[in-house]
Amino acid sequence: MARQERAIRTRRTILDAAAAVFDERGYTSATIGEILGRAGVTKGALYFHFGSKEELALGIFEEQLAVTLPPQSSKLQELVDSGLVLALRLCTDPLVRASVGLALDQGALGLDRTPAFRMWIDQITRTLAEAKARGELLPHVEVAETAELLVGSFSGVQLLSQLRCQRQDLEQRVVVLFQHMLPGIAVPAVLARLDISADRGRRALDAGRLEPATGKAAVDAEADRRAGEVAGR
Amino acid sequence: MARQERAIRTRRTILDAAAAVFDERGYTSATIGEILGRAGVTKGALYFHFGSKEELALGIFEEQLAVTLPPQSSKLQELVDSGLVLALRLCTDPLVRASVGLALDQGALGLDRTPAFRMWIDQITRTLAEAKARGELLPHVEVAETAELLVGSFSGVQLLSQLRCQRQDLEQRVVVLFQHMLPGIAVPAVLARLDISADRGRRALDAGRLEPATGKAAVDAEADRRAGEVAGR
Repeated sequence: MARQERAIRTRRTILDAAAAVFDERGYTSATIGEILGRAGVTKGALYFHFGSKEELALGIFEEQLAVTLPPQSSKLQELVDSGLVLALRLCTDPLVRASVGLALDQGALGLDRTPAFRMWIDQITRTLAEAKARGELLPHVEVAETAELLVGSFSGVQLLSQLRCQRQDLEQRVVVLFQHMLPGIAVPAVLARLDISADRGRRALDAGRLEPATGKAAVDAEADRRAGEVAGR
Repeated sequence: MARQERAIRTRRTILDAAAAVFDERGYTSATIGEILGRAGVTKGALYFHFGSKEELALGIFEEQLAVTLPPQSSKLQELVDSGLVLALRLCTDPLVRASVGLALDQGALGLDRTPAFRMWIDQITRTLAEAKARGELLPHVEVAETAELLVGSFSGVQLLSQLRCQRQDLEQRVVVLFQHMLPGIAVPAVLARLDISADRGRRALDAGRLEPATGKAAVDAEADRRAGEVAGR
């Protein structure tokens, strides 16, 4: 158990170093050597967890999702909470910033950025499907379509916030996003009870917990990608 | 008059060449020399219209906006039309694609990308303000905030569409965006009459016209930027 804990801690140290290097130098220019130097671990330790630069990026995507928030009375409140927590973490956690930066880096040579979006879209699709099963959604809502829209819109809103003011107004912009979207998604009785305030992210995060990821999702995504290559997709 | 027409045509030739070079090589790597070669014009002709690589980018931003669509019975229908026309032109016009690509290129060294977003936001703000004056908007809508949200969301939705399928489903994604946003913006009587179908962009563009820009907006934006520098903003 102690050994596993140590491995998880080393994994996170490596990911934090990779996030910092990707953020400063860009994915394409960053080298494993620089990440090793920054992390202060051995080559063997790094390659035990990550086989390549791309696996490091996948690890960052996955780690960013490893947050558990407290359950709420509606699934749509949980959706709002996760969006506002992501907005907050984008302002405070370099690993989360690197994750979104990599996903949106059109110049990242050799990096398949689709797993990042797929992870976000899958997570929101699950939450919306549960909301639908509980009768929280308006009848016309198509869960997959709405999930893609939310992920796309959030990505663009945070890009604009970054450009305009280094994300200082990001939480408020995400509030505005939900205020505009939710009337087209939620039944009125649920809509009326949603708390969509800018400090909601801080409160939800304080009540939740961050859990270091195990690396499984990254491995799955990589296997999926390789299977796709074999199938000639 | 003939001379002015020729100048406008040369300006567009240069911008098309710049758009192609920026698209292929990225803003940072592109050189004026390559753009000259592609455009087949003299150095003097290029510098008559554009003083620098950044002015070429501003010219592309401006040219992309130079489209006039037929007036509709509601201002919100005009907003929908302009969004769907932009989606269509992103799929068909390399200059429009370059414009959005430049605006979203985080690696574009030395390029101030804010004028592009400002032009889009200003245009939508004007349309929404007119819609508000006509009583088309729900009372709580704040025009500037909603305009920023629409531009941010559109940017992200098109990025995701580009990543997933080279923008083949962009028009449909923009339909979904409007379907989700407009119930939070429009009064019901206007909402019920809006045409938000994927082929709306094609119909609006066929009935409208593209007008070559004169370069004035780019000059204004540059003057604005320089004034900002002087004021130490």
